[in-house]
Amino acid sequence: MEFTFLGTSAGTPTRSRNVSGLALCHSGPRPWYLVDCGEGTQHQLLHSRYSLMQLRAIFITHIHGDHTFGLPGLLTSASMLGRTEGLDIVAPAQVQSLVNAVIENSDSSLGYPLNFIDSEAPGLQWQDEHFGVTSVALSHRVTCRAWVFTERNLERQLLQDKLREDGIEPGPSWGELQKGQDVALEDGRLLRSEDYTHIPRPARRLIVAGDNDDPQLLSDACNGSHVLIHEATYTQDVADRIGPWPQHSSARQVGRFAQQARLPNLVLTHFSSRYQSGPGGAPHINQLAAEAMQQYRGQLFLARDFDTYRLEKDLSLSCLTARPKGS
Amino acid sequence: MEFTFLGTSAGTPTRSRNVSGLALCHSGPRPWYLVDCGEGTQHQLLHSRYSLMQLRAIFITHIHGDHTFGLPGLLTSASMLGRTEGLDIVAPAQVQSLVNAVIENSDSSLGYPLNFIDSEAPGLQWQDEHFGVTSVALSHRVTCRAWVFTERNLERQLLQDKLREDGIEPGPSWGELQKGQDVALEDGRLLRSEDYTHIPRPARRLIVAGDNDDPQLLSDACNGSHVLIHEATYTQDVADRIGPWPQHSSARQVGRFAQQARLPNLVLTHFSSRYQSGPGGAPHINQLAAEAMQQYRGQLFLARDFDTYRLEKDLSLSCLTARPKGS
Repeated sequence: MEFTFLGTSAGTPTRSRNVSGLALCHSGPRPWYLVDCGEGTQHQLLHSRYSLMQLRAIFITHIHGDHTFGLPGLLTSASMLGRTEGLDIVAPAQVQSLVNAVIENSDSSLGYPLNFIDSEAPGLQWQDEHFGVTSVALSHRVTCRAWVFTERNLERQLLQDKLREDGIEPGPSWGELQKGQDVALEDGRLLRSEDYTHIPRPARRLIVAGDNDDPQLLSDACNGSHVLIHEATYTQDVADRIGPWPQHSSARQVGRFAQQARLPNLVLTHFSSRYQSGPGGAPHINQLAAEAMQQYRGQLFLARDFDTYRLEKDLSLSCLTARPKGS
Repeated sequence: MEFTFLGTSAGTPTRSRNVSGLALCHSGPRPWYLVDCGEGTQHQLLHSRYSLMQLRAIFITHIHGDHTFGLPGLLTSASMLGRTEGLDIVAPAQVQSLVNAVIENSDSSLGYPLNFIDSEAPGLQWQDEHFGVTSVALSHRVTCRAWVFTERNLERQLLQDKLREDGIEPGPSWGELQKGQDVALEDGRLLRSEDYTHIPRPARRLIVAGDNDDPQLLSDACNGSHVLIHEATYTQDVADRIGPWPQHSSARQVGRFAQQARLPNLVLTHFSSRYQSGPGGAPHINQLAAEAMQQYRGQLFLARDFDTYRLEKDLSLSCLTARPKGS
C-alpha cells in the first residue's frame, strides 16, 4: 500500500504546500483512490504517477473549501482527457450540490457518470477488490469523517497437510481454493476455501482523518490500524491563543492520543500556513514535530507535498523520500 | 502599465502552464486587476508580487471552468488573509450563481462584500482612478467578452504661455489646473483645467480577449489600442481537423486579423495542451508563433506563465523576462 500527499496546508495554499489531498493505492497506481480534493489537486497530480483515468473513487472528509474546491476542475479535466468510466464520490450531500451547481453554471458536462454516495448514510461501507472503506465521525465545525482503508483479498496459503489428510491431491482445485474459491469435487464433496487455507498476515489498515479536535473519537478504529494520518494544525500554544472555535487539533494533542492508542505510525499533516520550513521569523514547522515527539514514542512523520509512503506487508511504514525523522 | 500571465493553457492545466488568469496594474501592484480566474490562480499569485489584499476588481470573460473555477478559492483565501475591502466582480450572472452556490455548500463566508456587476448589462462601463474598462462581445460557445482597459487621468502639462497671456501668474492655481481641477480666482474668473492644460500623449489601451472564433469582432476596439491579448488555441491544421465546434481561433486567423487591424503588439495565449515546449513527439509551441508570424508583421509574443509585460508611456511593449521573439 502506498500513499502520496498532494497537499498538506490548512485553509490556504502556501508556496510549498497545497491544500488537502491524498492519493492512495494498493498495489500500483491502477486503480487509485483520492481522499479530499482541495483546489489545485489536479495540478499536483500532473507531477505524480497518478492518472485521472485510473481514479476509482473519491472520499471527502468534510465540505470545507480547502478539502473540496478542486473537485470541479478535477472532474471536468478527467472528462476532457476522455474518461468514460464512472466515478464514485463518497461525500456529504452538500458536495453533490456544490459540484452540480458549478457544472450547471459553467456550461460544463462530464462524459462519464458520477455516482454520489452520501457519507452520512448510516452504516455506510464502500468496497472494491482492494479495499474495504468505513468511516468514523469526528468533531469539527461541520460534519467530518475519518476514512478507514482496510485491504481485502489477502493472499491465502494452502493447508497442504490437511488437504492431503482429506485425500485431496494437488491439482486445479488447490489453485481455486488458494484464490478463495470454494470447490465442488466430482465425488460430491464441497470444499470451502476457508477450511483449507489460512491468511498468514493481518490486513493492513490505514486511517485518513479529516479536520478534528477530538482524536479520542478514533480510539476504536485505531485498534488494529497501522497508520494514522491526522491533522495537527497548530502547536499547543497557538491553539490555546486562538481558542476552541476552529476545532482543530494541536500536535501535542494528537501525539498524546497516538501514544495512548499505541499506534505504530503517525503522520501529521494540515499545518497552519504560519509554520514555515525555511529560516526567518515565522514559527518553524519542526516545532510541530518536537511537540508531538514529546508525547509519542512510535514512528512519527510530518507530511510534505509529494512525499510518498509505503506500508509493507510486514506492517512497516517508510517514507520513500528518505529524510530525517520529523523533518 | 504592466500585466503578468498567471495561466496560458486552454481547458486543462499542464505541468508548465496553468489555465487562464491575467494580472494587470497601472503603476505598481496597488491596486491591481484580474482578468479571468481559472483553478490555481491563487496559487500562481503566491509566486507573483500581487496580493489578494490589493485586488481592486475581477473581470471574467465567460463562464467556462478554465476561466472561473479559481474564484471560490481566491475569494475565500482573501477573506482568511483578513481582507475587509469590497471587491467588484464584473462577470456573467451565472458566475454569481456559481460563487454563491459554492460558498453556501462549503460552510464558507467572506469577511468583505462582493459586488457582482453583470457584464451583459447594456452599455456597461467600469472605472476607477486608473482605468476605464469597456467590453466587446465575442463569438464563442457561450456569451464571451473582451475587456478593454484604457488608462485614465493622464498627466497634464500646463499651457504656460496662455496662462501668462491671460494674466495668471505662477502659484497654487497652476498646480490645481495641472491636476485637472478647475480653479475659481479671487477676481471671480473661473479657470477650466482643460483650457489651460494639454495631455501630451495618448492614453494607453489594452485589450484582453476571452475565447473567440471571430477576431474581426475586435476591429473597432483595436483602432487606438496598443496591445491585443488573444487566444490562439490551435494551429490552423488542428483547427481544421477538429472543426468549428469549439469556437476557438487559430494562430493564423489571429495573426491575419492583427495585421489587417495594424495592431502594433499581439500577445497570443490559451494554447491547447497538445503544444509543448520541450523536445519530443508533441507539436511544438513554436508552430503557433511561426504560423502567426507568416501573417503578422507587428511585434508578436507567445505568452508563458509568469511572463510580465510592460506597456510604456511611449507605447512600446516589452516582455520583462527577455527572450527571443516568439519563443
